Amino acid sequence: MNGPLAPQPQLDAADRALVDGVLARQLRPLAKTITLIESRRADHQARAQAVLEALLPHTGGAMRVGISGVPGVGKSTFIEALGLHLIGQGLRVAVLAVDPSSSVSGGSILGDKTRMEGLSQNPAAFIRPSPSAGSLGGVAEKTRETLLACEAAGFDVVIVETVGVGQSETAVANMTDIFCLLQLPNAGDDLQGIKKGIVELADLIVVNKADIDAAAATRAQAQLKAALHMLRPASPNWTVPVLTLSALRHDGVERFWQTVCDYRVAMENSGEFAGKRRRQALAWMWDLIDAGLRQHFRQHPAVRGELPALSRAVERGEATPAAAALRLLRHLN
Amino acid sequence: MNGPLAPQPQLDAADRALVDGVLARQLRPLAKTITLIESRRADHQARAQAVLEALLPHTGGAMRVGISGVPGVGKSTFIEALGLHLIGQGLRVAVLAVDPSSSVSGGSILGDKTRMEGLSQNPAAFIRPSPSAGSLGGVAEKTRETLLACEAAGFDVVIVETVGVGQSETAVANMTDIFCLLQLPNAGDDLQGIKKGIVELADLIVVNKADIDAAAATRAQAQLKAALHMLRPASPNWTVPVLTLSALRHDGVERFWQTVCDYRVAMENSGEFAGKRRRQALAWMWDLIDAGLRQHFRQHPAVRGELPALSRAVERGEATPAAAALRLLRHLN
Repeated sequence: MNGPLAPQPQLDAADRALVDGVLARQLRPLAKTITLIESRRADHQARAQAVLEALLPHTGGAMRVGISGVPGVGKSTFIEALGLHLIGQGLRVAVLAVDPSSSVSGGSILGDKTRMEGLSQNPAAFIRPSPSAGSLGGVAEKTRETLLACEAAGFDVVIVETVGVGQSETAVANMTDIFCLLQLPNAGDDLQGIKKGIVELADLIVVNKADIDAAAATRAQAQLKAALHMLRPASPNWTVPVLTLSALRHDGVERFWQTVCDYRVAMENSGEFAGKRRRQALAWMWDLIDAGLRQHFRQHPAVRGELPALSRAVERGEATPAAAALRLLRHLN
Repeated sequence: MNGPLAPQPQLDAADRALVDGVLARQLRPLAKTITLIESRRADHQARAQAVLEALLPHTGGAMRVGISGVPGVGKSTFIEALGLHLIGQGLRVAVLAVDPSSSVSGGSILGDKTRMEGLSQNPAAFIRPSPSAGSLGGVAEKTRETLLACEAAGFDVVIVETVGVGQSETAVANMTDIFCLLQLPNAGDDLQGIKKGIVELADLIVVNKADIDAAAATRAQAQLKAALHMLRPASPNWTVPVLTLSALRHDGVERFWQTVCDYRVAMENSGEFAGKRRRQALAWMWDLIDAGLRQHFRQHPAVRGELPALSRAVERGEATPAAAALRLLRHLN
């Protein structure tokens, strides 16, 4: 690659072998690459970046699908059913997760691959638990890079699951092409479980567990459609559909995937598909820059000395935010 | 003030007179202070900060009310009716606006005070058009500082209006104690006019123009309540009410203000009122710091040289966001 980042980072023989292995679609080199990506060691980080640079020309080929929903909605069963359906069509499927709580809980989500028994034993599937990196920013960053590695390894579909802690849905929506929200078929009050702003991220809503009570599922579908009706659509070329589905019975999974494909066609025809990916990449770069700038700023000795007292003064209304910000920004040379 | 910002900025005689005039509740010194705040000249900015520091101990006394709604919903008529009602109760009312489009349109919102004829001629009212400062960040910053100046001038209620361009609703919600959304009594499809995320900012929703079609207003009220039902409330101590109202006939304005007062009592009893103001002030400080850090970073000669090509490479998928961010952050010394 002779881009603005030339000269290309030097790969040693071991990392060259990783790159070749990933491009040859071998799962063991892919897993090792992801372990490098997730490592907090500085030398591992440098190697991970060099490997990613080498993989980058081979990325972008997968459909990136975000899946969210409260615990108990049946995400694992749904992803297993969807994954097996896609594999049945000759596609290769990777499943990743963003769970910023996993560092606390010791790796809950997908940590137990028995949750997706059929998929985890299938050679056309690759399941990777959430990295336990602490902050949401760190977890999301590593999942994004893992997504690129999976694309270089030739996966046709990358599913990114979120448990819905904090802002993790926004993080997943910002790294995927389509964000799908799973809902339970509870009527009325129980739908309050939808977190603020999540419905508005959704490109597609699924009422799962329709087998339990078909009438309730239909009522929930109508309620969700009414709620969506109140919102201005994100794209003039797409009305967010609300599907009913039974992942347990594999009923509706095919229609779900057809809807995802319809979405892709509509977005590609309008040019929004590529535009969204460009915006996501640039926003990701600026997120990293902003985080780096803030970290660098907070480490400045004079800022570290003044920040606590100034923050208290601002909170108490003893200093204007502007005066405090100016005072601190003075230390930039 | 002997806070962490001591020694206190030096005020010259003219600015000392401005401070004294504002604290004496005189409108002319207040208007001059706001003109200083809105000026882009560096010396004016320094003087404005010194004046604001002197006023700061006298701020915080007003109820800060945000008002939003699409054009045509009757915001001016509503604010006029509300303002006159409050003045009738012996209160003094300031009306500010956040309109980042006013630099383009030449000052649309409130530029024409005839939109609020009764209020603009009342000595207990102060109406100030949106500053025409270009970016939303700049406009919001100046409106926030103007709000503080109005509080120092003893206004009991400060209403901040937004025309709903871009993210201006979020900016107004972040500087007020209660964010009120005005809606038209249209049934069904027309409610789609609600922008993404705006309903979720609202602490109080008003269906205006109920005089035109009371039945439609009641239907809209029910629809809005159903939509709110789908959202998790921002506070466990407040269920967002949906009121119907006719600003034209001054019908429902008293109940609106009673609801605002109920909200304040509920938030103060739970401690959320002061907590929200503290969070808003600290978030404002960090917004200014982040903006300052980014501006400083973008002005770095090496960053300016590399940024365009790196941004293009990221957009085209030729460089990872992480690699590009690291490359640029290298230039921090």
